[in-house]
Amino acid sequence: MDFSRLERQLEFLREADKAKSVFRNTLLLDASRRENDAEHSWHMAICAILFAEYLDEPITNMNRLLQMIMLHDVVEIYAGDTLAYANAADKAAQSDREKDAADKIFAILPEDQGKEFRSLWDEFESRITPEAKCAHLADAFMPVYHNYMTKGKKWREFRVTKDKVLLRCQEIKKGSDSLYKFMCSLIDDAVQKGYLPAE
Amino acid sequence: MDFSRLERQLEFLREADKAKSVFRNTLLLDASRRENDAEHSWHMAICAILFAEYLDEPITNMNRLLQMIMLHDVVEIYAGDTLAYANAADKAAQSDREKDAADKIFAILPEDQGKEFRSLWDEFESRITPEAKCAHLADAFMPVYHNYMTKGKKWREFRVTKDKVLLRCQEIKKGSDSLYKFMCSLIDDAVQKGYLPAE
Repeated sequence: MDFSRLERQLEFLREADKAKSVFRNTLLLDASRRENDAEHSWHMAICAILFAEYLDEPITNMNRLLQMIMLHDVVEIYAGDTLAYANAADKAAQSDREKDAADKIFAILPEDQGKEFRSLWDEFESRITPEAKCAHLADAFMPVYHNYMTKGKKWREFRVTKDKVLLRCQEIKKGSDSLYKFMCSLIDDAVQKGYLPAE
Repeated sequence: MDFSRLERQLEFLREADKAKSVFRNTLLLDASRRENDAEHSWHMAICAILFAEYLDEPITNMNRLLQMIMLHDVVEIYAGDTLAYANAADKAAQSDREKDAADKIFAILPEDQGKEFRSLWDEFESRITPEAKCAHLADAFMPVYHNYMTKGKKWREFRVTKDKVLLRCQEIKKGSDSLYKFMCSLIDDAVQKGYLPAE
């Protein structure tokens, strides 16, 4: 048997392993350390499965959604993680770096699988389909919830204020009005408890 | 809105976070540390997506397979990780602990979702459906591959021999003859290079 196709798939799996060492600005719930991209993607997938029932536009393809979530952050292996509350210029630069990273990492795979993975990543970035909206909902919900549960340690470290968190939560609002309402009540509580500066 | 259903889903997500602190006896590919259950599950999912084409029995439900992979190790939050090369008595005790853990962790969820997750976990354990066989294939392939790529450091630490690795690889054989053949050649190479004792 010719293993050349398998070798490219294994090279991608080896490269993907590095996502376990890309650390985000979100703490584990026990606040013991920052979480990495691989475990964040796994947690997000479970969140998306559980929260699908709250979506304003029902998803039709859970398989596509889960694959999208598995892959959405692999570009950060080359592009690094950017603070969700970064300014517009930093976010634009990050977006360019991520496109270059996508070109590079998905090219490792056999062409058909590389194209399929790239189309999932492009769909995520475009934020149009119900699946992409659900992925972004989970991608915003989880870190905000982690910040709340860890008493805003990272919010205070990065001087994040309520208006910025609410802006980020627009990704939740675009997916689910009821989850957005829940999150707004959590954010109000965070301000009241001193986890998050009102301004 | 009544958030009592959501509260149970959030409790499950909080409990699931602990999988990020259940460390396995497999190293990251850069050998810097052991990997945890959350990141292992994520990596396994990408492996299963890429390797579906090699399965002897094609899978018909990739969504179900990915959900099964996401959930297969959450029982270890209570039951702990057991060395894949443990003896039969230790494995039987682990199996009992995992059943108790499944009873406990899936009961956190709203009843309908708890039953659905439990049925995915039971399907994984039963090893009968093509989806369960694929999940076990990926669950065996990845750590053996990691061991090979990290020059057998953990194999040697735990005095694992070739016959035990081949026994573990029966999970690969049950899913894909071609991937099993590939793995056998890798194992022979590992013995030749001194990563894995022949006996």
